[in-house]
Amino acid sequence: MSLADIPVIQGVASSLTGNAPILLREIAEHLRRLLDCGETAAIDLQALPLTPADRAWLRERLGNGEIRVALEAEGQSTLEETGCQGVWWVTHHNEKGAVVSEFIETAFVPELVKAHPDDVQSGLEHLELLISDLC
Amino acid sequence: MSLADIPVIQGVASSLTGNAPILLREIAEHLRRLLDCGETAAIDLQALPLTPADRAWLRERLGNGEIRVALEAEGQSTLEETGCQGVWWVTHHNEKGAVVSEFIETAFVPELVKAHPDDVQSGLEHLELLISDLC
Repeated sequence: MSLADIPVIQGVASSLTGNAPILLREIAEHLRRLLDCGETAAIDLQALPLTPADRAWLRERLGNGEIRVALEAEGQSTLEETGCQGVWWVTHHNEKGAVVSEFIETAFVPELVKAHPDDVQSGLEHLELLISDLC
Repeated sequence: MSLADIPVIQGVASSLTGNAPILLREIAEHLRRLLDCGETAAIDLQALPLTPADRAWLRERLGNGEIRVALEAEGQSTLEETGCQGVWWVTHHNEKGAVVSEFIETAFVPELVKAHPDDVQSGLEHLELLISDLC
């Protein structure tokens, strides 16, 4: 196989498009709004024209944080804190392990990690039932 | 080795003391306060006279939830949601992997998982520096 045989699309996919630095500026703006008024945001990476090289560039610039959340519910979701606290790289997988969506969230803690009061109420009722069975 | 050679302490350690059901009632009370006024609480398991059997009983009753948080900072901490949402089983390890403390926390989300505004501010400054280097 010669170089001429390699489809052009592969060359494009591995190149930086210049979109990642724009995204980095948007993330900084989201962080400012989080600090100024507690506003959270999520950027849907699959809705943007990013090449694998763009994503790798972005991921490397954001770096790795200390927290990794794994959530098991009809496929695994991972919520990874980046090196910039308040910025989370969120990946949702289906039951077969394939990535179905990917977001960059700006939040003190992603909403998905918080227990909903209705669910806490159900948990309490379950616990009260357990306790009454002990008597 | 005969049965007579087994130290008595092993027999005690594997028995239920009756303390775990008391703890279960306390957890239910903590959940009520969480729902009523947003008050969080943490029970230090190492400060209580619990046998391994007591812990296993408690863990089994609380069940497993969908969320597991791993935090890497001078040893790993794990924050596991139990089957009762709002109740988290928190284990801190030292750098060698030994358990140094263990808590049952009641919170919508444990405080440790939340990014602190000062750290988010530092992250933003780091990001702004990165962006200015791109120009």
